[in-house]
Order: sequence, then structure tokens, then C-alpha cells
Amino acid sequence: MKTAIIGIGLIGGSFALSLKEHGLSDEVWGIDKSEQNQNKALELGLVDRIVTLDEAVAGTDLIVLATPVDTIPLLAVKLLNKVNERQVVMDMGSIKTELCEVIDRHPNRGRFVATHPMWGTEYSGPEAAVKGAFTGRTVVICNREQSDPDALKLVENIYSTIGMPIVYMAAEDQDLHSAYVSHISHITSFALALTVLEKEREEEHIFDLAGGGFESTVRLAKSSARMWVPILLQNKYNILDVLREHIHQLQIFRRMIERDDVKGLTTAMEKANTIKRILK
Amino acid sequence: MKTAIIGIGLIGGSFALSLKEHGLSDEVWGIDKSEQNQNKALELGLVDRIVTLDEAVAGTDLIVLATPVDTIPLLAVKLLNKVNERQVVMDMGSIKTELCEVIDRHPNRGRFVATHPMWGTEYSGPEAAVKGAFTGRTVVICNREQSDPDALKLVENIYSTIGMPIVYMAAEDQDLHSAYVSHISHITSFALALTVLEKEREEEHIFDLAGGGFESTVRLAKSSARMWVPILLQNKYNILDVLREHIHQLQIFRRMIERDDVKGLTTAMEKANTIKRILK
Repeated sequence: MKTAIIGIGLIGGSFALSLKEHGLSDEVWGIDKSEQNQNKALELGLVDRIVTLDEAVAGTDLIVLATPVDTIPLLAVKLLNKVNERQVVMDMGSIKTELCEVIDRHPNRGRFVATHPMWGTEYSGPEAAVKGAFTGRTVVICNREQSDPDALKLVENIYSTIGMPIVYMAAEDQDLHSAYVSHISHITSFALALTVLEKEREEEHIFDLAGGGFESTVRLAKSSARMWVPILLQNKYNILDVLREHIHQLQIFRRMIERDDVKGLTTAMEKANTIKRILK
Repeated sequence: MKTAIIGIGLIGGSFALSLKEHGLSDEVWGIDKSEQNQNKALELGLVDRIVTLDEAVAGTDLIVLATPVDTIPLLAVKLLNKVNERQVVMDMGSIKTELCEVIDRHPNRGRFVATHPMWGTEYSGPEAAVKGAFTGRTVVICNREQSDPDALKLVENIYSTIGMPIVYMAAEDQDLHSAYVSHISHITSFALALTVLEKEREEEHIFDLAGGGFESTVRLAKSSARMWVPILLQNKYNILDVLREHIHQLQIFRRMIERDDVKGLTTAMEKANTIKRILK
């Protein structure tokens, strides 16, 4: 099998490494708008050659979209316009509703498999690609009934071989759930970083004390705007819901602190402690 | 030298291990209200024996307060009432203003050294004690000019031997800085955990997708209420300041998302990215 990956950054680059590591693809071709990324991806051995979109369509069996989510729906349509009845197109973006709506009526819809592998780091670009990245993480496949059985099977086989448990969801559910367990963490990290950077203007030594707890909560604030702005906007309504609830919870904390409400704070923290159940 | 540690949990227990590891104390005695903690601390070899407060005052050179911050000021006064001119008392709490105010006029004030080692985990109790815990982390010593030179030297020597860089600050500054780089991270984690747990009541599979980013931002939500409620209340005014600013930053994000403000979001994220500078 030959694979083309569009967008050879953190996600696409790591996926290329996984395909090679597990012998899933004889060749991996790369497509990227940035010449710098093209050179870096070749240099790091993420891909065997750099090609154009038409070369990818002419010469590969599987085409993978790993670009920022705002570019995925249109690229998906363009690819579905061109592929034949044996080729498969898949995406790795973290939002699915708009994508699935856009390709819903396409005569080649069956050749597309919409996936969201739940892995990422705060870094970006080909140099951020990591070997063994996805293994052990969950992958979501959305609206599987719309994919042709052979296309679905090909993609399921890849993820299973990499060692990823597969969860099936409707696109809308996956976007809602991602807002709660992934997207909101990024917003709170960005906002926390800004809060402290703001204070640093008055208090220059404020970071002398930055310890382990701080580091783990603001780590995601290093994430790339090019990747995250489109995610927040494409998943706008779910994200506004969770953000409203999160601000509400912080306001409750604020009021309890203002009132020295030991009992309320204790109850809230003990309830929050039950998150243990879902963390290792 | 003989040392007594009051409160043999996460912090006190880890400190006991550090003293032993670096040969800083011939014996380490433990004091704890909880019989369960006493037994556990002996069983784990954190302390050599369990004693009473009076036995500690009669038989040790250094007495270390490692109890929740709401109990420290009163215990500090009681100990200063009893120690002689060669004994040293120190604390390891994360808030200093109230403590330093309370002991300010005590005739034995010089025997006290107020310290905040910047280390902790989300776990608690003697079983959470870790070997090598403090090494490489910063420790703050507050109002050092109020400590007798020999007392200060003894404590500085301990922390240096453990491998902790020492920073000197006024109590008020340390409390302000801790609010920004430690306490607020805990509040956002608690609130984030509650936000998602709230949603889980409607969406039972929401945690199927919980990935690495989620885990790192809510990890601190596992922290103990017994330790954290007093911290938030004793550092109330600084914490309310930072909490207000943090909620404000989240509201700005909310408004930018509502308005599809790509430029504003990009600028905010890129500014947040500069936090890199202070994280490894």
C-alpha cells in the first residue's frame, strides 16, 4: 500500500512514523504548503518523497488529511471529486460536524472515513513528530455507517495495528465530548498563562516560584494558534457551553472564598476529587 | 542533630526522607494527630519514633511544622513559648503573611525560620511521601532578617544539602507570588473537574475520550481539601485578585469565540505561547 499525508506536522508526521513502524505502508508520500516543512519532513525521514495533490491522487491507495480543521472540509470534497472506487480518504482532525455535513451528499462519501485520534502535544511542525505517538490512545471514528465497508476496514486495521482502541460516535457527539475533555483544557491553559503574564508586568520575579503544579496546568498554553483557533471556532457552540459552565464554577469558588465558606469549599473539592475515577 | 516533624504526611514525610537520605539528622521523630498516620509513618520508616509535642521540645534540636496552614500560626506560638535559645523551629507551609504577623512580636521570634519549599503532588498522607522529593526545586525563606543568624544558617544548610536553590522574600510577596504560580492552578483544576463531572450527568460516555491534555490540566483536582481549603482562605485577598483576573481572561476568550474573532484569538494565543520562556 502507498499512503499520502497532507500536512506533515505534529499529527501527520507522527502518523507517518507509525505507518512505517508497523509496516502498514510501503511508501509514505507527503504534501505540505510550507517548503520548510517539506524539507524538514524529508530530512527527518517522515516521508519518502514530497508530491502534489494530483500526484497523490494518481499514485496512492490512502490519502490522509492532517491539516488544521478549517481546511479539512474543502480538501475532503476536492479529494472525493478525484478518487476512484478503490482509494480511501481519511482525516485526523478533532472536529467532525462541519466536515460530515459538507461531504454528506457527495457521491463518493463512502470512500471517506472520519477519524479523531485522541493524541497530541503542545508542540507543532514536523520536528514535533514522535515515534509511537498514538499507541494506547483512543481513536474516534465518526458516522461509520456512511463509509464503505472496505474503506472502514482499511482504516480500522491501521488503528488497531498501531494499538489504538476504537470508539464509534456520531459526529455531533464527538464534537460535544471533545469540547469537554480536550478543547476546554486548552482554553483554561491559555487564559491561565495570560493571567500570570499580565501580573508579571508588575511583579517581575513572579516566575521564580513557578513549580510543578503550575507547569502541568499551563503546558497546553504553548499550543499553536494556527491549529487551535479553527478548532475553537468550528466547535463554537459546544465550546461556549462548556466555557460558560467553567466560568460559572470559578465564580462559585470565588464566592465561597469571599465568604470563608469552609464547608462549601470542602464539599466542592471532595466532589472534584472523584475525577480520580477517570484518571490513572 | 535530632529533628521532630509535626505532620507526617506528603510534605513532612518527604522531608523526613530527605533528612535521612542526606545524613542531616541522626534521628527523626514524628508527631501526628492521626493514629493511622503514626502507624503508617513508622511502618514506612519515615520516622524513628512517635512522640508528643513536649517530648519533641525536650529532646530535639529542630522542630518542623508540616501541618495544614490554618494550624501553623498557633502551633508556632506554642513552640516558641517552649524552646530554648539553641533550638530552631521552622515551617513548610505555603502561606506566610498570617504566620509572620502572629509571631512578629514573640520574644523568641529569632528561633523561627519561615520557609516554603516549592514542591508537592496531588496526593496526601504518609504513603504519599516520596524520596528525593525536594531536590532541584526552589525554596522560599521569608523575612529572614527576623531569624537569628544561627537558626537561619541551620535551615539554609539543610535546604542547600538537599539541593534546593533558596530565594528570599518578604512574607507578603511570597503569598502574592504563590497565589499566581501555584494556588490558582489548583482552583482551575478543581473547577475544570467539576465542569466535566457536571456534564457527565447527561453524557455518560464523556470520559471515553479523556486524553493526555485533559489529564495534565485536571491532575491537581485530586488534591486534598484538608490541605487546600485553609490555603485558599489564608491567602484570600491575593487569590481573589488572581481569580478575578483569570475569570476576566476567560470571558475575553468567550467573547472572541462568540464573535469569530480569528485575529483576537490568534494574538491572545501567541501571547500565551510566550509562557514557554519560563517552562522548560
